[in-house]
Parts: sequence; structure tokens; C-alpha cells
Amino acid sequence: MTVESIIIEMAKNARAASIEMAKLGETEKNNALLKIAEKIEQEKAYLQEENKKDLELAREKGLTDALIDRLTLSDAVIKSMAEGLRFVVKLNDPVGAVTGTWSRPNGLQVSKMRIPLGVIGMIYESRPNVTIDAAGLCLKAGNAIILRGGSEALHSNQALAGIISKSLKETGLPENAAQVVPVRDRKAVNILLKQEEYVDLIIPRGGEGLIRAVVENSKIPVLKHYKGVCHVFVDESADLKMAENIILNSKAQRPGVCNALETLLVHRNVADNFLPQIAQAFKNAGVEVRGCEKTCTGISDAVPATEEDWPAEYLDLIISVKVVNDMEDAMRHISRYSSKHTESIVTSDYERARQFTRQVDSSAVIVNASTRFNDGGELGLGAEIGISTSKLHAFGPMGLEELTTTKFIVLGSGQVRG
Amino acid sequence: MTVESIIIEMAKNARAASIEMAKLGETEKNNALLKIAEKIEQEKAYLQEENKKDLELAREKGLTDALIDRLTLSDAVIKSMAEGLRFVVKLNDPVGAVTGTWSRPNGLQVSKMRIPLGVIGMIYESRPNVTIDAAGLCLKAGNAIILRGGSEALHSNQALAGIISKSLKETGLPENAAQVVPVRDRKAVNILLKQEEYVDLIIPRGGEGLIRAVVENSKIPVLKHYKGVCHVFVDESADLKMAENIILNSKAQRPGVCNALETLLVHRNVADNFLPQIAQAFKNAGVEVRGCEKTCTGISDAVPATEEDWPAEYLDLIISVKVVNDMEDAMRHISRYSSKHTESIVTSDYERARQFTRQVDSSAVIVNASTRFNDGGELGLGAEIGISTSKLHAFGPMGLEELTTTKFIVLGSGQVRG
Repeated sequence: MTVESIIIEMAKNARAASIEMAKLGETEKNNALLKIAEKIEQEKAYLQEENKKDLELAREKGLTDALIDRLTLSDAVIKSMAEGLRFVVKLNDPVGAVTGTWSRPNGLQVSKMRIPLGVIGMIYESRPNVTIDAAGLCLKAGNAIILRGGSEALHSNQALAGIISKSLKETGLPENAAQVVPVRDRKAVNILLKQEEYVDLIIPRGGEGLIRAVVENSKIPVLKHYKGVCHVFVDESADLKMAENIILNSKAQRPGVCNALETLLVHRNVADNFLPQIAQAFKNAGVEVRGCEKTCTGISDAVPATEEDWPAEYLDLIISVKVVNDMEDAMRHISRYSSKHTESIVTSDYERARQFTRQVDSSAVIVNASTRFNDGGELGLGAEIGISTSKLHAFGPMGLEELTTTKFIVLGSGQVRG
Repeated sequence: MTVESIIIEMAKNARAASIEMAKLGETEKNNALLKIAEKIEQEKAYLQEENKKDLELAREKGLTDALIDRLTLSDAVIKSMAEGLRFVVKLNDPVGAVTGTWSRPNGLQVSKMRIPLGVIGMIYESRPNVTIDAAGLCLKAGNAIILRGGSEALHSNQALAGIISKSLKETGLPENAAQVVPVRDRKAVNILLKQEEYVDLIIPRGGEGLIRAVVENSKIPVLKHYKGVCHVFVDESADLKMAENIILNSKAQRPGVCNALETLLVHRNVADNFLPQIAQAFKNAGVEVRGCEKTCTGISDAVPATEEDWPAEYLDLIISVKVVNDMEDAMRHISRYSSKHTESIVTSDYERARQFTRQVDSSAVIVNASTRFNDGGELGLGAEIGISTSKLHAFGPMGLEELTTTKFIVLGSGQVRG
């Protein structure tokens, strides 16, 4: 079979499975997820054996330790995959919920009902645990999923796929509801991206290069975020101790993630007080400062920022700092450089909090809290499959509801149009 | 200036205008729409003079009467454009609505608030009234819009664009909030489809060829529907007189539109009774029948249907008719051939109505009413900018709400992540 015929066959099978999935009740879907969790734990030895093949190839290829770490199915990772599934079981099934009902003057009753999206294609890089996390969420929302992980994780992903489809079969669900692309060939992705007849949504997860390539080639709608250039603005009315805590947490608690702080904006009226204070905190936390001219005056060991620093996503213990004239100036800077991911203001002024939240055009706009809260779990969505920074369908973290859509149901008694 | 630099400049200006638009209240947006309506009526003579240039070129090129009719800005069309705007003024502004608020255990208050999408690119064919209808809806929802109509309507569209931007200016709105692409060159569309940095959504309206070309080339999310292959299923428990009324209305009230009926499915247990009855009704209405074998037995002047008939969107007084074994058989046929637009069941059986509405995967699923009701106005959305048959963002008619998205607003008192 050619790569093309393999992918088309998978897509057709996924479409057929999605039709069956859409009919299922919550209990049936939960039973399948619990079975997958059980089998993952039972077959730990087999999973780790298959994973070892990937790890050996990775070492031969000279992959970095960080990449090898992400690729490893340790006992802890296997446990967390199983527990992740059990957590999804506890979340409410969004399918079948009616989000609104109204009547028309002619007596028609119109409702909008949540239904699964259909078939979701997931394209991601090395971590094999994404295979389970993504499959769990997509299946719970009644979808079929096609998984294309990094080629360096192929043995691990195929072992996981085997466990999933065995579990689906044993619990009476269609076994093609979750499939892993079984070939390394890079062509497979581009062929998958053309199957708009069978696939409803593509979710890429990985570096900006991967995501741009997917958007460039896809005929299927894509939900994505390129990067997170998150800002904190310290207003002149801010509680400066609170500001310090929020900034440190936003920047340094986990600097390698998309909701970490990258640029700090400080109102000029508090710069003289605040810059030395936050400089000390940055120093203690090992954060390098790249500052505008005024910042470099206030923070003696700051490096002068260049134009490249303002749109930069460092994902590291580096921060760019700019002194701004007022909140309007801060919002102009954000509007120009932000990636529409997360922006936070620290203020005690009611009107400014109100204006900032109304006007800033990002997926999460936060008052007096860390940027690190822009996360599906933290915001109360239960779990997330990703964060969207484009505005169609979902803007911000995507949970189970965002893996569904709504259809109109119209109940009549013989009405026709005049 | 090259076409490329013109389009990029327009896209940048639209982005800047969208930032201003997002800040406006309902009254300011309504005032602008009312001003456009007033000026359209005042400058009728000028509009018709410019329109005449398009009509003359169209006649020289030998366009069909139907196309020339669609291109004409008659007194009635001008009046309906102005009244359409006044109707949109009366609709509720969706921007700023909070669609949900909840609290987290750590005291964070999370809300989802409706915000404009940003910049919308509209690509359509000949009718110049779309320029006003689309601009009215997009502006009311706080967006900026770039309009690319058919090249044969360029004089008319530019005249309308002049009126819109004068009206925006006079009422204090950014004049680049609605712009018409001023060049005929077809390259302009493909350049626009690459401006993902400045444009948030593309809505194409026109034939399947236009829409497929847009999807093929766009890096920006596209909301579209290719076609409407709508079905009515007459269950064995149907009130056959009601079924006849619904079928005739669905097929013949306005056969050229996407929510018109194309395929009739009849339960075999009522076929002997119902086929002669509906055959007579079709004959009176001038509808040609293309039937399956059993249909041709029951309807003597039916033409045998071929495999091409089942997925066909006739948009004409032609209908394909198939006798099915039961509702499951009907739903299998629908699942195979439908365009996910609109399907209707005529039944008096509670459980079948329930099953049909749950299982059929189309944007509107209707019980005992005409397929012609799948329309934004008829379903109570006020007005529609189009109908989506893909499931992302919107599935079915799109009104003002579907021209917005939501962002998360998080209010805290110093919370950080542990």
C-alpha cells in the first residue's frame, strides 16, 4: 500500500467510526476510557520495551538529553497517563447539551444542541503521552481521532494505539475511533491535511515551524497557537509587593511554557520605586533583564533591549522590561507585539481594570493575578487539548466543549414558508 | 503601487480600524449604519449612474440576463439595502455580553466575554447589495471588513464604498472599517488570502468553484458552505397531507436556493399510497421526478435516477426520489449523500423524531416543517451573513453572534500558581 492509500483508508475508517461514536452515551465512553487506563497500567512492561526501541534509535541519532527525556515512558509518565484518563472520565460529557431553545412566531421551536465535531487530526512532536491525553479528550467528546506523533516516538505510539484499539473493541466501541499513523514518511502529514472530506479539524502541537507548515498546507480548519508573548503591566496604582509576586510567578515558576511572562511594562510614575525592587527579585531568581533606556537607568545590570526583544518568546529566564507613559501606552505596546495569548495588569484602580479587560485583545486578560493561570485546568475547563490564539471557534484554552459544535434542531407541526 | 502593496496596505489599515471598532458602544455603531442608509437613498442617482457603467460593460461582454439582473441596482434593490441596514440597527449588539462567569477555589473569578472577531474578508460574486448587507452586519458586530465583489460590479461597489467611508467619517468611526478592493486583477484575492497577520476570517459567497478556490489558497480560517443537498424523509407514521405540503414548499417555493429540497426519501410501507399522491402534486408544480426503481413503478412519468442524482444539487424544479426500507436506511442514505445542510423528517412517532434529531449530522435537523426554514432570519438570528456546513466556529446560519468570539477575563487579588 502507498502512504497515500494508507492515510485515505485511515481517514475513511475514522469517519465511519465517528458516526458510531456520535451515538454513544456518556457511560459507554467512560467505560472505554477506564479500560484504556487499566490496560496501560497492566501492560507497562510491554510499553516500556517498545519505548526502549525509540530511545535507542534516539541515542544513535544523537538527540539531546531534553528530547530523550520527553520521549521516555517512565513509570511516572505511565501512571500520569492512566490518571489523566480517569480524570477525564469525571468531566461532564458536553454532547447532547442544549445551549438554547426559543420559539418563533409561527410556532416552530428552535434549539441548539451540542454534537461532536467528527474526526480530529492531531499532529504533534515527541512526547508519547500526548497520544493518550488527546485520545482521551477526543473520545470523551464523541469524536474519532487520527494521531500523528513524532517519528522518533513511533514504536511507543503504536504500542499505545494497540492498547487503545483493543480497549475500544472490548468495550464495544468502534476500534477505528483512535488510530495512530503507522508510517514515518513525512508525506503522510500533507496527505492527511488534504482529507477535508473525512477530517473536520486539525490540531497541531509543537514548535512554530511545525504549526506554520500545517497551516500552510491544510485544507482542513486548523486550531493553533504560534507562541505566547505574554505581558504584565504594572500600573501606577499597583500594590508593588503584589506586582513583584505576580511577575516572579509569571516569569520564573515555569519559564519554558507558553503562558510564562516575556515582557514587563512599568508605569513611569512608579518606575523609580519599582525597578530596583524587581531588579533584586530578578537577580535572586536568576532572571536576565533586557531593558529600554529608562529601565537600564533604573536597573544597573540590565542589558539594553533591541527591537528583536519586544516580540521575543524567550521560554527562558530572560525578560524584556519597558517603562511606559501610561496605560494607553502599555496597551499600544501590547497591541503591537503581543501574540494575543495572555496579558495581565496589576492595578488598584477600578476604571483602569475595567478598560484594560475590555480593550486588550488577547485570549485571557487578567487583573491582579499571574499569567500562568491561562490554562484549561486552572480556568476550570477540566482539561485542555491546547490553547488557540486565533479567534475562530475557540480563543484561549480548549476543553471538552471546544471539541464539539452545535446543530439546530427545529420542531414543527407542519409549518411551511409563505 | 502593485496589487500586492495595495492589498497589504488595505489589510493593515483594516487591522488598525478594527482596534478602534472594538472599543465602540452600540449607539455609535448604529449611528454609522443609519447614516449609510440615509446616504444610499440620497445618492441613488449617483449609484445608479455608476451601476450603469457596470451594466454596459456586462452587456458588451454578453453576460446572461440573469446575471445582469443580479447586477442591477434598481430602485427596489437600493431601498432594500437601506432597510436592511435599519433592520440591523434594531438587532442587539453581541459585543460585551458575558456568556458565563464562575469562580475557582483560589478565588479567581473567570468570565467569557464576547468580542469582535477583528478583520473579516468577504469574497463574493456579482450582486452589489452584498457589499452593504455584509458591511452592515460586520460593522454592527464591531469588526472591520474588506470586501472583494465580482469584477463586473466594480464601479457599483466602489460607489458604495465611497458612501460607506464618508458615512463612517461623518459619524466619527474609522473610515477604513469597510473597504472595497479597488482592482480587478484576480491576483488580489490570493494576496488577501495570505494576510493572516491582519485578517481573522474569510467568508466566501458564491458557486462551489469560487469557494473551493478560496479554501485551497487561504492561510486564514474560512467559513463556507459548498452546497445544499437537502432531504425530506416521509416516515410510515407521517400525516401524508402534511408531508405533501412540506415537500412542495421545500422543493418548489424557491428552488434556486441552498435550503431547497433535492432528495425525497419515502418509507416503503407508505410508498404505494404516497407516491401517486406526491406525483400529482409534483406534476401540478412542474417538478421533474428522477426515481429509484420502486419510485418509477409508483410514478409512471418518473425518469430512472442514476448514481449522479443522489449527490446532486439541482437548484431547479427537479427532485430525486428513493423508497427506503426504514428510518435507518433513510439515515444511511443521508449520511452518504447529504452536504450536512438541512434534513427534515415527517413523522408522528415520538421516538423516531427523537432519534432522527439526535443522529442526523446536519446543521439543521427538522421535524414536521419545511427545509426552507434553515435560514438566519427564519430561525430567529435576526439576519445572516451565510450558512456554514463545516463544523468549526459555526454550523448552520451565522448571525451577529457568529461574527464575534469570546475571550477569558480573569479577576484576581494577587493569586499566583503554586
